[in-house]
Amino acid sequence: MNRKELTSRIRETGSYLCVGLDTDIAKIPSCLHQEEDPIFAFNKAIIDATLPYCVSYKINTAFYEAQGLKGWASMEKTINYIPSTHFRIADAKRGDIGNTSTQYAKAFLETLPFDSITIAPYMGEDSVKPFLQFENKWAIVLGLTSNPGAADFELKDMVATTEKKLYEMVIEKVSQWGTPENLMFVVGATRADEFINLRKIAPEHFFLVPGVGAQGGSLEEISKKAMNGDVGILVNVSRDIIYASSEKDFAEVAGARAANYATEMKLYL
Amino acid sequence: MNRKELTSRIRETGSYLCVGLDTDIAKIPSCLHQEEDPIFAFNKAIIDATLPYCVSYKINTAFYEAQGLKGWASMEKTINYIPSTHFRIADAKRGDIGNTSTQYAKAFLETLPFDSITIAPYMGEDSVKPFLQFENKWAIVLGLTSNPGAADFELKDMVATTEKKLYEMVIEKVSQWGTPENLMFVVGATRADEFINLRKIAPEHFFLVPGVGAQGGSLEEISKKAMNGDVGILVNVSRDIIYASSEKDFAEVAGARAANYATEMKLYL
Repeated sequence: MNRKELTSRIRETGSYLCVGLDTDIAKIPSCLHQEEDPIFAFNKAIIDATLPYCVSYKINTAFYEAQGLKGWASMEKTINYIPSTHFRIADAKRGDIGNTSTQYAKAFLETLPFDSITIAPYMGEDSVKPFLQFENKWAIVLGLTSNPGAADFELKDMVATTEKKLYEMVIEKVSQWGTPENLMFVVGATRADEFINLRKIAPEHFFLVPGVGAQGGSLEEISKKAMNGDVGILVNVSRDIIYASSEKDFAEVAGARAANYATEMKLYL
Repeated sequence: MNRKELTSRIRETGSYLCVGLDTDIAKIPSCLHQEEDPIFAFNKAIIDATLPYCVSYKINTAFYEAQGLKGWASMEKTINYIPSTHFRIADAKRGDIGNTSTQYAKAFLETLPFDSITIAPYMGEDSVKPFLQFENKWAIVLGLTSNPGAADFELKDMVATTEKKLYEMVIEKVSQWGTPENLMFVVGATRADEFINLRKIAPEHFFLVPGVGAQGGSLEEISKKAMNGDVGILVNVSRDIIYASSEKDFAEVAGARAANYATEMKLYL
């Protein structure tokens, strides 16, 4: 999916919601445990219920890998079930030397039909560039994350011509390696104070924003501070939608919760 | 495997070689393509041939994920084939917010029988600590990597009480989160000039050292500069061993190449 298509989808639906499929076998309703593939059964129901209210799905690969081979099978079924009308994110946080990053890119952007993959930037340019070689596919690079550990390195000051924090330097530098057409940044919703500064560094790029819901970020605040002329944000919500109910009505309740987010988003568009 | 066992294995065998199983379907001998699982058939032969000359195997997860579900199956078969006498590394470069890192730790240290997993440190403490909660298992955190991209961030100067490079700050900080019993660092063999400095920051930790062979690092130089009283280094060689021959004799030639490395290592022990 290219930028124009993504922006059109957001305008048409009035939603910039991404539903995060962090599907944990220990947290899904017990009535699904009799299914042949409980994780896929859960995801399928969640996708059916939330499809009209979101423009994107994000699969958190850790939850699938934790189940070994059958977890990877559930992930393949899930990504193949998500229609190509929706922007498909592999939240995989990969990144390695060039020849290895090429293999990760192949895994998610070629072997599996994801539109994008999240990338850890620590190893620099040759670890990121292999993900930028696929037409209409995206790299989503960690900028400033939502977790407490962001204070350890990301928020530390660097020596540069002018003093910058590490994450500012990362975003400035990485934005030279791709374009707003194939590169996004992860910026946590819990970092609302930094969004105005972030928009100075990266006015055009889309931000993938996790941290609304369970992690406490404010949808209103980040929408007001972070949008650009093409909307420019995808807001991910995982646990607050997919685990809204642990009963048989889980999909219906998840759909209603996603609809609430989508309704609130219309106010800010 | 705990530190005492690892050090004993190195002393007994006289080798601190790690064989990297970066197994690329496009690079293995064509005579294997008729096998039901060519990647596992290749790995099995390489493991049989190199077992006496190394103390560790490193599976580069990217190469398996690139093949989708059947690649993950090849990885499972491979890790289950490696005997527990050898230190088993998942070179996976994972790391995410706490609840997600917990799932990655489960994937590799519990569901699969790896002894250790490589971790990207960008997201800080709560992204690393979940990997340190498993008895006799290890996190191997990226410190200073062997690739050109290390110049982009890792080698940049930070503002601190005294001026430090980012990688120095990362290693100093991360070493407070674990112990030399459950935490190693990745330090590239192409960074030999930094090893003396690195040993000041982390005198006791093991370093996993990639970059010998195809990437050009010198085994002699890093052995002389980086060893500590417990040896303290595992030197990984991937392509230079596993692709030493592309003919039917590939395993025999790989074994001979590994034996050469092990012989050279004995000189430095």
